Amino acid sequence: MKIFEDDALALATRLLVQRGAPPPNAALQARVLVEAELKGHPSHGLQRLPRLLARIERGLADPRAEGRARWRAGAVLDVDGESGLGPVVAMAGLKQLLERAESTGIALAAVRNSNHLGMLAWYVEQIAAEGWIGIAMSSSEALVHPHGGTRAMLGTNPLAIAVPTAGRPLVLDLATSTVSMGKIHHYAANDQPIPAGWACDAHGRPTTDAALARAGAIAPFGGAKGYGIGLALELLVAGLAGSALAPEVRGTLDADFACNKGDVLMVIQPAAAPDLARRLADYLDHIRNSPAADASQPIKVPGDGAARRHARSRDEGFDISPQLWDQLGALELSSTPTPTAFEGQTQ
Amino acid sequence: MKIFEDDALALATRLLVQRGAPPPNAALQARVLVEAELKGHPSHGLQRLPRLLARIERGLADPRAEGRARWRAGAVLDVDGESGLGPVVAMAGLKQLLERAESTGIALAAVRNSNHLGMLAWYVEQIAAEGWIGIAMSSSEALVHPHGGTRAMLGTNPLAIAVPTAGRPLVLDLATSTVSMGKIHHYAANDQPIPAGWACDAHGRPTTDAALARAGAIAPFGGAKGYGIGLALELLVAGLAGSALAPEVRGTLDADFACNKGDVLMVIQPAAAPDLARRLADYLDHIRNSPAADASQPIKVPGDGAARRHARSRDEGFDISPQLWDQLGALELSSTPTPTAFEGQTQ
Repeated sequence: MKIFEDDALALATRLLVQRGAPPPNAALQARVLVEAELKGHPSHGLQRLPRLLARIERGLADPRAEGRARWRAGAVLDVDGESGLGPVVAMAGLKQLLERAESTGIALAAVRNSNHLGMLAWYVEQIAAEGWIGIAMSSSEALVHPHGGTRAMLGTNPLAIAVPTAGRPLVLDLATSTVSMGKIHHYAANDQPIPAGWACDAHGRPTTDAALARAGAIAPFGGAKGYGIGLALELLVAGLAGSALAPEVRGTLDADFACNKGDVLMVIQPAAAPDLARRLADYLDHIRNSPAADASQPIKVPGDGAARRHARSRDEGFDISPQLWDQLGALELSSTPTPTAFEGQTQ
Repeated sequence: MKIFEDDALALATRLLVQRGAPPPNAALQARVLVEAELKGHPSHGLQRLPRLLARIERGLADPRAEGRARWRAGAVLDVDGESGLGPVVAMAGLKQLLERAESTGIALAAVRNSNHLGMLAWYVEQIAAEGWIGIAMSSSEALVHPHGGTRAMLGTNPLAIAVPTAGRPLVLDLATSTVSMGKIHHYAANDQPIPAGWACDAHGRPTTDAALARAGAIAPFGGAKGYGIGLALELLVAGLAGSALAPEVRGTLDADFACNKGDVLMVIQPAAAPDLARRLADYLDHIRNSPAADASQPIKVPGDGAARRHARSRDEGFDISPQLWDQLGALELSSTPTPTAFEGQTQ
């Protein structure tokens, strides 16, 4: 079924407010989930909301917390997320980064004890919209096996990079796994088999059964090189945020544990050369117009497909399974917000 | 034939000094080239020295320049390399970064007008040896086709990341092409065919002829994701250094043009958690000891192979083609340094 952006935002916001989220925090969390739907990435969309609501109800996520941030060096912000919603903590930190980087030119936030960020592209897009280069990375549960291995040892360790240009920014957002676990969950939820080569089961055997893959390990993208990048991101995030390493990470895919993964956000000022933004935009167009191996498949630049889907979804609505929409509707509470485990901790 | 480190360093240093390089600059450039040999990456080793010597003789590389650096923001160093040797300019900038980052926690150098850096791993290893996280990236001539494309539009855009641990640091160093152009040159120099899938020729047709591949385009690693990372690095380097984009880049593979690619170096202070470095080292060991799909191929961590080869080569020497060693010997000059085009520019 088709859902329109405004209806999805309204429902998601309401569900969060009903569980004690201040309206601005609820609206921000809803925005990040709905943006993933608009861009055609339902794996990071509303299907994650029921679990997030359960996390709030169980005191694993505090919808009021914005995190406690302190500058541990002139341009490095140390953020204890205090179990806040991922987008709320991240955007509070990002605001400080952009202010600080006016003088330092570069600034980094290392975040721990914060809930799932959702789709990273959204954050670096906000940075690029301010004219800055944005980089975001995040760790996760052990879901990916090493190159040549069979056991889940690494997170899917997504990386997002946005570079502003005189036209649309380049927006890269990828998991360093062949596929995100969110997408495997989406296949499992729809009883669809996954392509061969994506994953092995809990015994290290290759599988096309999405349900078995959920308990197994996803292949890293790009062989030894993709594995190397995923492992470097794993160490970067843990090394900067002091957060858990993949085998110890909990709380992004469950409603049972505190979330102990880490996030890193970085903003960098582009060079001031007067024609630079135009040169970058022209170069991206030059790439788009370069010859394709298959003339029916023109060359794309990262972010092109998402931007096209986003524009269409805002006009025409986006697809969602009726089961999920019904499930969300059934989560509406008519009563006033119930106290959460965090209630007593606010002043 | 086998060559020992000290003999290679001595010859390379001498050849550079004979062309006007101050001994410390010559020794540093020689070190970076020989390190690549020791690590088993001859594509970035001494085979690049004859071209570099020719660049000095033609005034395209100034072996005395260290670059002109200024802080364009509190933690961003803008470096005009003034046609200096890549390692000399980079290490001068790196010294400033490490000093500045003592207070800022993170610092970045954006370098243009500098010659080829050689193997990036070496730089991030120097950073990790100081206890810092190091990131290095560099742009190059258009050598890589877009995912789904056939024409060389991107540089090989290498990326290196080192993260210190209580044990050996993780050291990642990769080109975002399926293979480096240096390696294709090495195959061509040895009249060896390249594997299928590495490259297409100047007409966009797949080829296994290394000589034809040199004039064609290399495939990006890792399909759409690897292409995306390579393109993001292309825009990051140009966007930060104000350097040329791949189709306009010259001077890393020729002795005819000024070198207009860009380099980005970054240092970041790890989190101060007391057990963190030990946790990272234990995690890497945990990965190495995790089950392998093929028991005869144990899991490796980026940098393991290079470190093993490096240790062996220091003991036993490294392999080099007799032709190349003879070629280098024939480049010795008995006369005093000849003036270069830059001679008149020094005060």
